[in-house]
Amino acid sequence: MFSSLVAPSGGIETPALVLDETALLNNIEMMAQRAAATGVRLRPHAKTHKCLEIARRQMAAGAIGISCATVDELSCLSDAGIVGLLLTSPVADPAKLPRLANIMRASRIMLVVDHIHQVTALSSLLDDASICPDLLIDIDVGQGRTGVCSISAALDIAAHITTTAMRLVGIQGFAGHVQHIHDAAERSGSARDVARQLKAYAEALRAAGHDIAHITGSGTGASEFDCDGPYTELQVGSYIFMDADYGAVRQSGGVALPFKPSLFVLATVTSINRAGSVTIDAGVKALAFNGPPPTLIIGAPAGSTYRFAGDEHGIITIPPGGAVPAVGSRVLVLTTHCDPTVNLHPRYTVFREDQSIESWPVVGRYQF
Amino acid sequence: MFSSLVAPSGGIETPALVLDETALLNNIEMMAQRAAATGVRLRPHAKTHKCLEIARRQMAAGAIGISCATVDELSCLSDAGIVGLLLTSPVADPAKLPRLANIMRASRIMLVVDHIHQVTALSSLLDDASICPDLLIDIDVGQGRTGVCSISAALDIAAHITTTAMRLVGIQGFAGHVQHIHDAAERSGSARDVARQLKAYAEALRAAGHDIAHITGSGTGASEFDCDGPYTELQVGSYIFMDADYGAVRQSGGVALPFKPSLFVLATVTSINRAGSVTIDAGVKALAFNGPPPTLIIGAPAGSTYRFAGDEHGIITIPPGGAVPAVGSRVLVLTTHCDPTVNLHPRYTVFREDQSIESWPVVGRYQF
Repeated sequence: MFSSLVAPSGGIETPALVLDETALLNNIEMMAQRAAATGVRLRPHAKTHKCLEIARRQMAAGAIGISCATVDELSCLSDAGIVGLLLTSPVADPAKLPRLANIMRASRIMLVVDHIHQVTALSSLLDDASICPDLLIDIDVGQGRTGVCSISAALDIAAHITTTAMRLVGIQGFAGHVQHIHDAAERSGSARDVARQLKAYAEALRAAGHDIAHITGSGTGASEFDCDGPYTELQVGSYIFMDADYGAVRQSGGVALPFKPSLFVLATVTSINRAGSVTIDAGVKALAFNGPPPTLIIGAPAGSTYRFAGDEHGIITIPPGGAVPAVGSRVLVLTTHCDPTVNLHPRYTVFREDQSIESWPVVGRYQF
Repeated sequence: MFSSLVAPSGGIETPALVLDETALLNNIEMMAQRAAATGVRLRPHAKTHKCLEIARRQMAAGAIGISCATVDELSCLSDAGIVGLLLTSPVADPAKLPRLANIMRASRIMLVVDHIHQVTALSSLLDDASICPDLLIDIDVGQGRTGVCSISAALDIAAHITTTAMRLVGIQGFAGHVQHIHDAAERSGSARDVARQLKAYAEALRAAGHDIAHITGSGTGASEFDCDGPYTELQVGSYIFMDADYGAVRQSGGVALPFKPSLFVLATVTSINRAGSVTIDAGVKALAFNGPPPTLIIGAPAGSTYRFAGDEHGIITIPPGGAVPAVGSRVLVLTTHCDPTVNLHPRYTVFREDQSIESWPVVGRYQF
């Protein structure tokens, strides 16, 4: 469907972040159906899209809320009236507390903690009776980044929370290390191991009298397996866009994930003086560096590949015999890694089914 | 000098791009002296800093103008009244021509071309007599990205330019592949090879009757050698900041480059539950991924190293016996690669000699 979108792009300055709304809506609907079929709920992650228009479409498809990675994202979504917000990173920066307090005066939100220090810092905000976040204990399920590393540490934090006016309502375990395992059987095994850990934490906390109503985590790669529990909700992100790495992830049966690539960077061919390649105006400042080189390049011959050539330049290698695009012509390059690519752009240029073009702002980039 | 800057950073939200003005001014002055000693001029590159306040300090130190990589940068600097602007990338995007025309109505600028197509496209703007850019022919001196690859191609473009109202005023050869060679003798040899190529192009064009007044190129790494010519000016960029990679580049005699690290990302320690490491709130969206891991981390024990742990997280490995920073404490991480790190942030938080703190906007990120 997207192959028809290069030609009418003439008026758009490049490099530009380009979104195929038809593919986006297809992906949102497909994940909503996957969840509905098993009873698990969705709290999709805004760190992927940073976009109110996309969050609203996820909510319209049945999501119970939106996950955020930063106070900037949380602030933008809260200001826009989006409810059911969860901040998935522990807040430790004392300079952020005033802004967080403002958000909590307007919205009931969930926060994660992995250390008593964070609970104490949040307690300092509770003099204002309109502020009372629900807390989740963040569990390190193997990623080695945030979260507690033992059930006893979780029990200590839970006991500490009960001494405050805040409520402990659940646990989070984000298995970032599992999502991108290409082989389905290997990924399924890792996902089951994470699920077992979260079940053990939940049982121990419940045995100590805590109400663990929410078990949140997962992502696009493991969502096929994590619908079976113990998760009550999935923080899926990349399924809306897909990218060069997720294109290599297989689901059960060895087939590709059912989501369609919807996000590309539109670029202009700037230099064609070297045989076998052309240079485009999309480099490290337009496409995130931390992903595999895209091989889906619409507007270039099949078999073309992209590589970085500095901050503002990329090189497309054209296979032997392939037609070389002219200077000034356009290509659409699949994103390397979708989340940090979005973060490089101020807006999406959205191509809609009826051939109209909209502009959707990217919000919540570091802004303070 | 910067080691004293962690403590007073309490009110600043993290992650934040932090600049030591004393080190910045030292670097600007040192490069200005290097150029003045040899008679070569400086047209420092705004792709590194995207900052009017820094461009003005470079001009005040004697720069003849500022180089820009994009029309966005060019537009912001021109609007701010900065003169002597050179766009170092060939413009091929037809959607950019109206904006470029507006800039050229206000400022006399230099543009590079590497294909007759670009000359023809620019010619289409000349009906407005107030528009008349000076052109440089871009030469591929071995980077394989933009530029002509032969003297005959340069002569063809030069002949074509003479059929328009535009003036050919020089050549550009940017040796991006040379700047980061760590060994001084090897880098010097590569720089001399590039210089020989540019000399041959200039001689051939002059023999054909063209006035090659400007020979522009070079960068921080090769500037020590390129002061000797044939360059009339150097497009130095990273010397103002330095970064993890430039820290490993040696100058003649095997010593470090004389410029001081001035640019850091201030981050907060968010999680400390794993022995031997702590997690901070600066990841792929705060520090450019395309550079070596920084080993200069102020506020963490000597010998600490940084690695990425996702979009919003990084992990600092603490050497055995090193004191573990507390949750909520601050560290300053040297930037991985300075240019694309700046591009991730909306502003610099500038620490000045007198302990005052200023905010300098980052301008000219992709914005259309």
